Amino acid sequence: MKVLITGGAGFLGQQLIRALLDAGTVKLADSPGKVAAEPITRIVCFDVVDGAIKDSKVDNRAGDLGDPKTVAALVDKDTGVIVHLAAVVSGTAEADFDLGMRVNLDGTRNLLDACRATGQKPRLLFSSSIAVFGGALPSVVTDATTPTPQGSYGIQKLIGELLVQDYTRKGFIDGRSVRVPTATVRPGKPNGAASGFASGIIREPLSGFEALLPVPEETAMWVASPRAIVGMFLHALMLSPQDWGWHRSLNLPGFVVTMSEAIATLQAIGGDAATSLIRRQPDAQVQKLVSTWAARFDTSRAQSMGFKADSDFNQIVRAYVEDNRDAIKVPVRI
Amino acid sequence: MKVLITGGAGFLGQQLIRALLDAGTVKLADSPGKVAAEPITRIVCFDVVDGAIKDSKVDNRAGDLGDPKTVAALVDKDTGVIVHLAAVVSGTAEADFDLGMRVNLDGTRNLLDACRATGQKPRLLFSSSIAVFGGALPSVVTDATTPTPQGSYGIQKLIGELLVQDYTRKGFIDGRSVRVPTATVRPGKPNGAASGFASGIIREPLSGFEALLPVPEETAMWVASPRAIVGMFLHALMLSPQDWGWHRSLNLPGFVVTMSEAIATLQAIGGDAATSLIRRQPDAQVQKLVSTWAARFDTSRAQSMGFKADSDFNQIVRAYVEDNRDAIKVPVRI
Repeated sequence: MKVLITGGAGFLGQQLIRALLDAGTVKLADSPGKVAAEPITRIVCFDVVDGAIKDSKVDNRAGDLGDPKTVAALVDKDTGVIVHLAAVVSGTAEADFDLGMRVNLDGTRNLLDACRATGQKPRLLFSSSIAVFGGALPSVVTDATTPTPQGSYGIQKLIGELLVQDYTRKGFIDGRSVRVPTATVRPGKPNGAASGFASGIIREPLSGFEALLPVPEETAMWVASPRAIVGMFLHALMLSPQDWGWHRSLNLPGFVVTMSEAIATLQAIGGDAATSLIRRQPDAQVQKLVSTWAARFDTSRAQSMGFKADSDFNQIVRAYVEDNRDAIKVPVRI
Repeated sequence: MKVLITGGAGFLGQQLIRALLDAGTVKLADSPGKVAAEPITRIVCFDVVDGAIKDSKVDNRAGDLGDPKTVAALVDKDTGVIVHLAAVVSGTAEADFDLGMRVNLDGTRNLLDACRATGQKPRLLFSSSIAVFGGALPSVVTDATTPTPQGSYGIQKLIGELLVQDYTRKGFIDGRSVRVPTATVRPGKPNGAASGFASGIIREPLSGFEALLPVPEETAMWVASPRAIVGMFLHALMLSPQDWGWHRSLNLPGFVVTMSEAIATLQAIGGDAATSLIRRQPDAQVQKLVSTWAARFDTSRAQSMGFKADSDFNQIVRAYVEDNRDAIKVPVRI
C-alpha cells in the first residue's frame, strides 16, 4: 500500500514518516477492533521542498498544492492512506490572504478531488486546528461547541473539515479531521505560525539563542507534543469508519499550559542559562490573535475513542531534549 | 447607486427587484438608526436566464456564476449593494455534485473576489439556508447551534457563510448571511429543491394540477412567505455594520407548519376541488433528506434586530392567491 503525506517535509510530517518507516506497516481497522497491519510499499512525501529523509521507500516530491495537475499526480489506485498536513500557517495566512486561500482551501480541494478520481475511496486524515475556535467561547470547549474562527487560517481549516465531511458522506473518501492542539516543542527554525512563541521560548534558549515572548505570562494555551500528535494521527487513521461514525471532525486531547508554567519548566531543565534568554516583548497583534484562541477543552469523545495526550509539560520538554540532542547548547538536567 | 442581484430571475429575485423599483431607493444605515434612502440608478439582474422584468433601470444579464471573468464584469466601483441569491438548489446539488460545487462554492467565491477587487467594500447580502442544520439536532435550533449540514447544498451554503464572514472581517466587503426558511408558497414551476413539495401541494392544486406529497402529513417545516423573505432581505441590507456586529450569520424568523396543517389551509381556501388533487406518494430519498432538516427555531436574535416573519400559514396562502391571480384555476374563498 502507498501512503501520501502532504506537508511531509515539515516537523510533524518527518516524524510521522520515521514512525511509518520504523513500523513498516500502517495499522487500519475496517470494522471496530479488527485491526490489520498493511505493509507499506511506498511513502510519497509531498511538500514545497524535498523532505530530509532519504530512504528507498520514500519518494520526495516538491511542488505546489494549489496546482490541480500536480496534486492529481500524487495519488493513484494503490494510494490507500493520505495524511494531509500541508498548510500555510496562521500568521502567514493572515498576512497573505491569497496564498492562504490557494494552499489551504484550493489545495485541500485539489487533494480531495484527486482522491475521488481514483474511485478507491482512500482513507484520508486531515490535520485541522483548534484555530477553528475563537472569540466569545465557553470556558471549556467541547466537540459540540460551534466553531467561530477569528482568522483566515481557522476559516480555511474549517472549510477543509466541511469538505472532508461531505466527500466522506458522498463516498468519495473515508475522511477524518482532527483539530490539533498547538504543537510544542516544535523543533527546527521559527515559522510564520502566530503560536510559534510557545515552542520558541523553550527551543531557542535550549539552543543558546534569545527567544521573544510576545504575550503576558498568564497566557494559557492548549498544547500537545509532536510525539503525542504523531501517535494520535496514527490512531485516527487506524480507527474504522464505524468508530468515527457520521461526524468526522474531532478535538484532539492536549493539556493547558501557561507561559509562566512553561518558563518554570525551562528553569528546572535548563536553569538560568536558558531562562535568561527569554525576552518579554509584547506584540499587540499576536496577543490579539492568541487571545481569541480556545485554551481549555473537554475531549471526552476523543478519549473514549482511545486518543491519548501527554501527561505534563515537563514530559514534553524532556522528550524534546531527547529527540533533539544535537540542538541543545546549554547544560540540561533531565 | 447600482444594485446587483444574482439569481435575480428567480421568484425571490424578481419580487425583490419589483420592490426595489417601486421604492426607487434602497435603505441603508451606516450606523444604528441612521437610515438613508440611496437612489437606485441601475439594477443588474444576473442569472442563467434573462429576468422577466423589462425596465429601463434593469439590466438583465445571463451567464455562468462559475466563470470568474463573467462575475468580475458584474460589479464596479458604483455597485454599492449586492444580493447573492443564485444557487443550485438542494436536490440538484445532491444529484450533481460538481455543478453544486461550481455554482454554490466557486460562484460565491467569484462574487466575493469581484467585490473585493472594487476596493469599495460593498454591502453584500448572502442568502444562506436552514439546510446548514441537520442530523441530531436540539428540539429548538438557535443561533448558537452548531451547523451540521447533511447534504452538499447545506455544506456549500455554510462554506459561503464562512467566506462572507472572513471577507467581512478582512474589510473586503460588508457582508451579511441570512439563513432563509423554506420559502412557501413559491410561485412558478416546480424546481429541483427537495423542499419543493411544501409549495407544490398548495400551488399546483390551486392551478388545477395534481401535486405529489412525498412525506408523511405530520412532517413539520420551518417556512416563510416570499413576501416576508423579501422584506427581511431589505431589512438585513438596511441594518448598519454595528447592528450586525462580529457574527454575520443569522437564522431568519419563520414559523412551523405541518403538511396536515398546510392541507387544512388549502381545504379552507380551495375546498375539495383543490385538496383532491394532492396525491400521497412516499419518496424514501426525499423523506430521508427532509427528516434531517430543522423544523423549530428560536430566532430571538433576529427578532431583536427587527426582522419580522409572517403571522400564520393562512395569511401566506392568501398572499399567494392575491399575488398570483392569473395562476389560480379553482374557485377560492379568501
